[in-house]
Amino acid sequence: MSAEGVCLILGAGSGIGAHVATRFAREGYHVALCRRTDAAGLQRSVDAIKAAGGSASGILLDATAPDAIEEFVIKVENTHGPITTAVFNLGAQSGDRGLAETSLKQFELAWRMTSLALFRLAKVLIPLMVERGSGTLLVTSATAAARGNAGQHAHAAAIGGRRLLCQSLNAEFGPRGIHVAHIIVDGAVNSPDTLGKLLGPERFAQYRDMLGPDGLMDPAEIAETYYHIAHQHRSAWTFETDLRPFSGKPWWND
Amino acid sequence: MSAEGVCLILGAGSGIGAHVATRFAREGYHVALCRRTDAAGLQRSVDAIKAAGGSASGILLDATAPDAIEEFVIKVENTHGPITTAVFNLGAQSGDRGLAETSLKQFELAWRMTSLALFRLAKVLIPLMVERGSGTLLVTSATAAARGNAGQHAHAAAIGGRRLLCQSLNAEFGPRGIHVAHIIVDGAVNSPDTLGKLLGPERFAQYRDMLGPDGLMDPAEIAETYYHIAHQHRSAWTFETDLRPFSGKPWWND
Amino acid sequence: MSAEGVCLILGAGSGIGAHVATRFAREGYHVALCRRTDAAGLQRSVDAIKAAGGSASGILLDATAPDAIEEFVIKVENTHGPITTAVFNLGAQSGDRGLAETSLKQFELAWRMTSLALFRLAKVLIPLMVERGSGTLLVTSATAAARGNAGQHAHAAAIGGRRLLCQSLNAEFGPRGIHVAHIIVDGAVNSPDTLGKLLGPERFAQYRDMLGPDGLMDPAEIAETYYHIAHQHRSAWTFETDLRPFSGKPWWND
Amino acid sequence: MSAEGVCLILGAGSGIGAHVATRFAREGYHVALCRRTDAAGLQRSVDAIKAAGGSASGILLDATAPDAIEEFVIKVENTHGPITTAVFNLGAQSGDRGLAETSLKQFELAWRMTSLALFRLAKVLIPLMVERGSGTLLVTSATAAARGNAGQHAHAAAIGGRRLLCQSLNAEFGPRGIHVAHIIVDGAVNSPDTLGKLLGPERFAQYRDMLGPDGLMDPAEIAETYYHIAHQHRSAWTFETDLRPFSGKPWWND
Repeated sequence: MSAEGVCLILGAGSGIGAHVATRFAREGYHVALCRRTDAAGLQRSVDAIKAAGGSASGILLDATAPDAIEEFVIKVENTHGPITTAVFNLGAQSGDRGLAETSLKQFELAWRMTSLALFRLAKVLIPLMVERGSGTLLVTSATAAARGNAGQHAHAAAIGGRRLLCQSLNAEFGPRGIHVAHIIVDGAVNSPDTLGKLLGPERFAQYRDMLGPDGLMDPAEIAETYYHIAHQHRSAWTFETDLRPFSGKPWWND
Repeated sequence: MSAEGVCLILGAGSGIGAHVATRFAREGYHVALCRRTDAAGLQRSVDAIKAAGGSASGILLDATAPDAIEEFVIKVENTHGPITTAVFNLGAQSGDRGLAETSLKQFELAWRMTSLALFRLAKVLIPLMVERGSGTLLVTSATAAARGNAGQHAHAAAIGGRRLLCQSLNAEFGPRGIHVAHIIVDGAVNSPDTLGKLLGPERFAQYRDMLGPDGLMDPAEIAETYYHIAHQHRSAWTFETDLRPFSGKPWWND
Repeated sequence: MSAEGVCLILGAGSGIGAHVATRFAREGYHVALCRRTDAAGLQRSVDAIKAAGGSASGILLDATAPDAIEEFVIKVENTHGPITTAVFNLGAQSGDRGLAETSLKQFELAWRMTSLALFRLAKVLIPLMVERGSGTLLVTSATAAARGNAGQHAHAAAIGGRRLLCQSLNAEFGPRGIHVAHIIVDGAVNSPDTLGKLLGPERFAQYRDMLGPDGLMDPAEIAETYYHIAHQHRSAWTFETDLRPFSGKPWWND
Repeated sequence: MSAEGVCLILGAGSGIGAHVATRFAREGYHVALCRRTDAAGLQRSVDAIKAAGGSASGILLDATAPDAIEEFVIKVENTHGPITTAVFNLGAQSGDRGLAETSLKQFELAWRMTSLALFRLAKVLIPLMVERGSGTLLVTSATAAARGNAGQHAHAAAIGGRRLLCQSLNAEFGPRGIHVAHIIVDGAVNSPDTLGKLLGPERFAQYRDMLGPDGLMDPAEIAETYYHIAHQHRSAWTFETDLRPFSGKPWWND
């Protein structure tokens, strides 16, 4: 068992998820990672944390599969001890797509991966945290949680709903010691696994050049704010914060 | 065929849906109603409109059933002519319910009845409207679309996401002549079929007394604003409006 | 005395103010106009309403002058009878202006013309309305009330604050029968006196052409929504609505 | 000159201001304090920081007096070196007060102390920061910046406008390296100088008991988040965050 506690990360690709894991592991947390695909990438994340003296474990997990989230939570609790912080880092951004190009299946998948998956995590994990009197749930969100836009039918509906789910969870469980935080990442993250794959390597490089120095968000720096929020004193908790690069326009000016 | 056009109403109980139907029928629209249950109630709505000289038709329809919405739209178009206004009036409010009391099935049902059902309606109807260069989609929404709250896990996630879906539809289709409006009904409606059933007749009467005169929202008066918005000139369209009784606190003061 | 009541309009240029006046006068209201400059333009508005069979009066008034608003309200009440609807239509948009180019004087003037002037109107008028048990206050607002932006330091601070003042007035006086509505005009209005002057005639014409048919908001059509809101039943009042041309991007997508 | 830089604090009472000062001083900043009254209290703050090995200075300053803010900034820059972080901590909360009880003078004072004072600080300080390519401006805000409410006419109008001023400053100066952050303190702070004075000692103690452990916000803990935000990497800046006690209702649920 870790002295600091256990940090579970749902959606630990090479971007925010992996860097939050690294940040928590550095402070003595055991970090339990999962991602949908890429066993080799997952192993690299776990190995890197261990090589730096940290404690980490990981599995591949399809968050839309029945019981997958539920079993992962139970297994981590049984193996590594109480989950003190959970980071929900699953997204369903797949680029802009008009109504005609958005199938019912895609609309449903976006909801299953983001809104329903968070609800399922809450159903299994929050009662355990409530019993222990404390626990933290950090939810990675995005621009589309603040407002819909052309091409964002599936994504905005899914994560816009998820934002209000976070508010509902906070309303019920904040007074019982559970810290829910909704973090709006309102800019492009320097993440080869998500944005890099979406754009392809060449366009990703061009985009990075176009944005200029620090115009892409550094996931290691984002992780600093996750860590800070997870360790706020309960008399001064953040429910919602935004994050964006200095040179980026906020969603309300974009 | 109606001179004014066809107004389709998804969710025509005795409250907002029925009164919007009556209002549009009075002006010469054919109104095509549907509701999930209560064939007798549906027939009464249709008969009342006809008795007043209007044109109406209606079917029972489970909006979560595969192809039900799609077939209804096509049938109405084929039988009565182009749908010029669609009123999406399906809700999934079922009272406050804590996380432990909210099942995965309930969470999914709320989403299917509100967010997915609107997406399905948009998928089948908006392309027809775009071809004709115009059309109106009015979406009845509620307090929980503005913010989550304790006991509103399923409802707020579903209709909060739907609000952003409306914004996405507006962003893509406003410039192509489709008027999407999201109407936040931020108060209790004097509606025996929904609130009346939720509370039971006795508590409903007590609640009405407690709120005082005009403290419950009159659905016939709400229908006036629906009718107004549907007939705004395209140089001055409303996307979002709120409605509440004079004596009620807005959601941001509640 | 007018059968319908008296509609006072603070800021009756050739755009929204004049058209709201015309709309109310057509229904039998006496309309009491004021504007800061252009006695000839004011006279034309009054004459046009009278020529159409309506009842109108008007004065020039600097809303930032001490007691000017207060005396105007009292004079209108004494001369024409109880003010049943007041339309606050003063703005302080003066185009984009960086921080260095915005003087303290300009910052203060924007606040005096919009936020303080509304407070002064409320101080003198609302107690009279409360005594009579009813009254309506419609406030014309703009994009910058929803969010700040580069070049909008003075304007956004002034009307952003005014929006919350409207919420405060609504919270205190809604339950006492006073209908406050905040109308966000989120697009450019076809108004020679304001936008026309800001851009100059040539750029105004070019801008109109660029926006295409109905891309500029028709103030006569905007007036329809003002009239509708002023006549909502008190069981279904709008506090906030937005208005924009079908082809315009909402502020949250712009 | 301090190795870390200079942190100027406008409004350094015994609550957030003093604790942010202490936090920055501990890390090596020179902190330049000011407050309106209570020279002895100010001296205690300065002495406490010095006793702990920090560097501090302070003056009494009426932020509504002409040139007071401007001269303070210049003096601090000349004496202690470039201001790297400015904390704007002036508020104008004076308890609930109905429209009839709110004078024009009070309405204006609230605006002068919060909105205009921030504009003045920005006018004098931001150009200096822009020249140096970086700088941070943290603005303490409150519930009433998010929405108006009964009794909050003056306060909500003033700080609601200030929130949009912060957005305007961010839009113009973020891309030039200036980090503006708007921190919504959405709960009661354990601060004898402000809340304590507002309520009086007895009611303050009762209120604290009623809220229970950690139900009042600890200003030392709030200061942790100020310090964190001031040190975020420019690829991941927060513009807005909220803070409240675990047991408190967010403004949207209150």
